[in-house]
Amino acid sequence: MSFGIDDLPVRDELRGKSPYGAPQLDVPVRLNTNENPYPLPEALVERITERVREAARSLNRYPDRDAVELRTELANYLTKTGGYRVGVENVWAANGSNEVIQQLLQAFGGPGRSAIGFEPSYSMHALIARGTGTGWISGPRNEDFSIDLPAAERWIAENKPDVVFITTPNNPTGNAVPPGTVLALYEAAQAARASQGSASMVIVDEAYIEFSHGDSLLPLLEGRPNLVVSRTMSKAFGAAGLRLGYLAAHPAVVDAVQLVRLPYHLSAVTQATALAALEHTDTLLGYVEQLKSERDRLVGELRALGCEVVESDANFVQFGRFENSHTAWQAILDRGVLVRDNGIPGWLRVSAGTPEENDAFLDAVRELKKEQSA
Amino acid sequence: MSFGIDDLPVRDELRGKSPYGAPQLDVPVRLNTNENPYPLPEALVERITERVREAARSLNRYPDRDAVELRTELANYLTKTGGYRVGVENVWAANGSNEVIQQLLQAFGGPGRSAIGFEPSYSMHALIARGTGTGWISGPRNEDFSIDLPAAERWIAENKPDVVFITTPNNPTGNAVPPGTVLALYEAAQAARASQGSASMVIVDEAYIEFSHGDSLLPLLEGRPNLVVSRTMSKAFGAAGLRLGYLAAHPAVVDAVQLVRLPYHLSAVTQATALAALEHTDTLLGYVEQLKSERDRLVGELRALGCEVVESDANFVQFGRFENSHTAWQAILDRGVLVRDNGIPGWLRVSAGTPEENDAFLDAVRELKKEQSA
Repeated sequence: MSFGIDDLPVRDELRGKSPYGAPQLDVPVRLNTNENPYPLPEALVERITERVREAARSLNRYPDRDAVELRTELANYLTKTGGYRVGVENVWAANGSNEVIQQLLQAFGGPGRSAIGFEPSYSMHALIARGTGTGWISGPRNEDFSIDLPAAERWIAENKPDVVFITTPNNPTGNAVPPGTVLALYEAAQAARASQGSASMVIVDEAYIEFSHGDSLLPLLEGRPNLVVSRTMSKAFGAAGLRLGYLAAHPAVVDAVQLVRLPYHLSAVTQATALAALEHTDTLLGYVEQLKSERDRLVGELRALGCEVVESDANFVQFGRFENSHTAWQAILDRGVLVRDNGIPGWLRVSAGTPEENDAFLDAVRELKKEQSA
Repeated sequence: MSFGIDDLPVRDELRGKSPYGAPQLDVPVRLNTNENPYPLPEALVERITERVREAARSLNRYPDRDAVELRTELANYLTKTGGYRVGVENVWAANGSNEVIQQLLQAFGGPGRSAIGFEPSYSMHALIARGTGTGWISGPRNEDFSIDLPAAERWIAENKPDVVFITTPNNPTGNAVPPGTVLALYEAAQAARASQGSASMVIVDEAYIEFSHGDSLLPLLEGRPNLVVSRTMSKAFGAAGLRLGYLAAHPAVVDAVQLVRLPYHLSAVTQATALAALEHTDTLLGYVEQLKSERDRLVGELRALGCEVVESDANFVQFGRFENSHTAWQAILDRGVLVRDNGIPGWLRVSAGTPEENDAFLDAVRELKKEQSA
């Protein structure tokens, strides 16, 4: 046997684990990671190169450690689209919402503390909890993947988590969480921790909110300093390759994450590229409208094909049920379409692509259904 | 009182702390953060914009999660300059060497484990240890800032650290650690942990190695799977704004950090920019030669001015001694030159700048010395 991970003094909880990540396969139609299928418009590509050229001319210097210009523009975007006024002091940015969440857990979670999420949900929440030494509590959902509020309140009361994750729209199931449920969970979390003389941080992960039929929960920030809304430019801005996540919260939360962020974590080229993309918000949100209508078409056509589909407020659709979801995944892949098997028995997830990509996917499902009923 | 960090449920160890980072002041001559004073050559700026333009055209897709092309080119660079052949399987990259170190401590440190560094040294080692829940042990140095080997071996034997940091050339003092010392510390660390049936990871931080009179310690990797060499493109490559750190080690170490890295941590624009810079290695290493000769001039002239100076193998010089280093720092700043007060009583640190910047700095010290002796 050659020398491997287990011969190194890695932490016990890492032994036998595999790196997180969807298979990166080279197939004609990739609908597995909820990427935006529309490349950035050429005018934006040119604006990015202009801004990066300027940044490259002083690349020998460290970037703006506090990313003030970028955070200001993100605040402007949220104010314009989120129904609530936020300023630079309310916003923090990092390399993907994963890093935002990691910083939040370093500040408010960590050893001896716990976080709860209602699963199935974005699996990185649990993985980042593990990576930061935060205890993870897997909370319940209903059969239809909505949050079972009475049960969730009981779990919170019993476990008194330091951090509560609420993903809305939820990934991988696509359904949004009603604002009343979020408020009730926030109150339950504060009540549970108040008995310990403390408070709980509630993180609302709105990575897909721009695709929702409903509104952002940003206005709930008013008067709730323990609430955090996290966002990303990966989806609505069509910039998964940029790795730019951000949060909005009370300024004290922004101060707190600055105690744990790695200094100069956000490169000058990342800041320049994100600023260029924010200049083109209107065009990019136009693509979002197209994707929403394609998403609705996917829901309708999958149902017409006899699939069960979870109501979706995101740029993806969870569909099923299959007796063996891995076999179904492979059958769809054999027809050149890569979707995601998130390990939820019976279900698969497909990202909304271009009309042509969605047609290819629907054709693959149609053939699969035909075979199964043959 | 308005609502602040202490009103939030932040971790106890963060209460009362301030964010890490040197003051970012707008002064004519900035010699405080060991930046390379030479902007990237215009040909490289153009190459960066070309590569970023290409990357921007598929920015809607996630980046190569494993950064294979970039790691291959970093391996080629190390093989060419480091006196030891490494391949893509030996190299890992992240957003700055800070993130590399964070990932190493998440894999090999963390709650219930400890790391030792010999201080004063790069203060982020201790801060990242704190951020990852790793216990921190501050090991001893001699009065001249060299590592006191017998004392260090005793500390290692007594404390049995899971991780040992050795910074060479050391920051902020500038002196290199002899290879024999590194080897002795490696052996001591393995012996100490072997008594626990385990091993210790030894991280050699070579952020400034390209400026050294001596050679890289990369060849020590041969037959030592618990040794890691960390590097950065911030200094020799003149790309502090890029945030690109990397490591070389046994492939099992690269496998291990992949268990804790955030997926897609390295953006497509970062990968594209770093690849462009690596194409211009020869030009950039030319600047390194200029900086080495300026660094040697700083050492000589500061001594001629009556300063004590630590022998430097880096792109900065630690000089003193001052009765009150903060007052001296302010007096130099009043003359338009920003240097670094690292909190080591009596000492300040100056980065090697352009000849003109170094002249301005030396003039400021000359005047300060004149005043003090008046």
